[in-house]
Amino acid sequence: MFTLDKLVAEINKKQSFLCVGLDTDLSKIPSHLLSEPDPIFAFNKAIIDATEPFCVSYKINTAFFEASGAAGWESMQRTFDYIPNNCFKIADAKRGDIGNTSNQYAKAFFETLNADAVTLAPYMGNDSIAPFFDYKGKWGIVLALTSNPGSADYEQKIVGDKFLFEHVVENTCKIGSTQNLMFVVGATKPEEFELIRKHAPNHFLLVPGVGAQGGSLKEVVKYGLNQNVGLLINASRSIIYASNRNDFAQLAAQEASKMQQEMAFLLA
Amino acid sequence: MFTLDKLVAEINKKQSFLCVGLDTDLSKIPSHLLSEPDPIFAFNKAIIDATEPFCVSYKINTAFFEASGAAGWESMQRTFDYIPNNCFKIADAKRGDIGNTSNQYAKAFFETLNADAVTLAPYMGNDSIAPFFDYKGKWGIVLALTSNPGSADYEQKIVGDKFLFEHVVENTCKIGSTQNLMFVVGATKPEEFELIRKHAPNHFLLVPGVGAQGGSLKEVVKYGLNQNVGLLINASRSIIYASNRNDFAQLAAQEASKMQQEMAFLLA
Repeated sequence: MFTLDKLVAEINKKQSFLCVGLDTDLSKIPSHLLSEPDPIFAFNKAIIDATEPFCVSYKINTAFFEASGAAGWESMQRTFDYIPNNCFKIADAKRGDIGNTSNQYAKAFFETLNADAVTLAPYMGNDSIAPFFDYKGKWGIVLALTSNPGSADYEQKIVGDKFLFEHVVENTCKIGSTQNLMFVVGATKPEEFELIRKHAPNHFLLVPGVGAQGGSLKEVVKYGLNQNVGLLINASRSIIYASNRNDFAQLAAQEASKMQQEMAFLLA
Repeated sequence: MFTLDKLVAEINKKQSFLCVGLDTDLSKIPSHLLSEPDPIFAFNKAIIDATEPFCVSYKINTAFFEASGAAGWESMQRTFDYIPNNCFKIADAKRGDIGNTSNQYAKAFFETLNADAVTLAPYMGNDSIAPFFDYKGKWGIVLALTSNPGSADYEQKIVGDKFLFEHVVENTCKIGSTQNLMFVVGATKPEEFELIRKHAPNHFLLVPGVGAQGGSLKEVVKYGLNQNVGLLINASRSIIYASNRNDFAQLAAQEASKMQQEMAFLLA
């Protein structure tokens, strides 16, 4: 159970709303780890130990683990098991399917992996993501507006009197509440936060795209902050690959600490 | 490599365009299999042996395997490895993410599992699915119009002068060809096949929703057939759970054979 109250309390305690993204790529981790029995877990463990004081959440990108098949799922399970319980554990899986299939995905992420949250792709509509909201104390994080150029293809198309991503926010709020529903909102377009906040003033937003993808933390806070903070800012590559040498964990901590300090300043 | 020519040749040889969906659920398989070392694989193996004469494709629903974690991925790998090479192997995974993440999913499904095709969710736009089309001889099968009620939420919304799902078909045709791109089109709305065929007259369509979900094979063929057949009809539950006793494989073969005979009649 990771309640909204617990999340807000952790943010206030750590003065951070940083989420560290574990997009762990075997070809990018320091070579001295490759002799470990599970190099991906060894890397994640070191990153978690180093960054935990500065963040409130970890986001595990399932693709990077699935690329290694069953062994990758074992590394993923070890990583979820290792993350301390005061951190909000996100499976970045972007799932969504007909009901009986989404039930199985919910089981995979909420029961087998024991994630607190899973990211969801809304294309197939509300019934394709509804099963994730039946789990008490678990969260669905629905793609609204993403930070890639392709967001112009459909998300930013006008449907009736508003953008498709606004319909997604409005419509998904019918099946989830501020207690179990967040939205993914890309940080590269800060002015569009105002549109999201119009439909979801009190929900948390998961914001990728700060760091390697170029978004500005200050802008995001200006437009996205609410009375509960209401933001989780994800940074992946800029933290976990700050160095590819023996000092990788130390430099990851430095990068995470730098972001935490900026956040503390913006929260003050 | 499963080329378009090979797929059409297999369809003509078997007089079938049936795809058997392996949505294998531990709670639904015959109880005598539960003592096997890998019950899910044991079930799939028996279903494949029994139905292979009557179908040209198998669709593995990844959710049902992920629900069992790493052990589930092992069952999934064994299942992909076991499917004969004259059958088109689909990973029904509905993935789609920013480029470097989609690269990892493509690696997971096309390299690690050696699937011929993977289903893709287009919400994030063309760049989120483009990496799957960089694999020679592999296919992306993009969600266009699905058969669940939630398809009304976004897929069937009007954008400009047409439905969102028409934009998806039109737009995705810019990054894939008839040699590597199919679309998922729900069988519950046969008249909408005409709209799909307007934008993709020569592409193959993967059609779920015949069988347990209630679509009519005759209607789908009437509106969807093209000069290459251009249809793969998926049936999952109506075949694999035709019986939950010792005769499950025999009854699955009967159901598959019945569909194959209908298909042969419609192809004549």
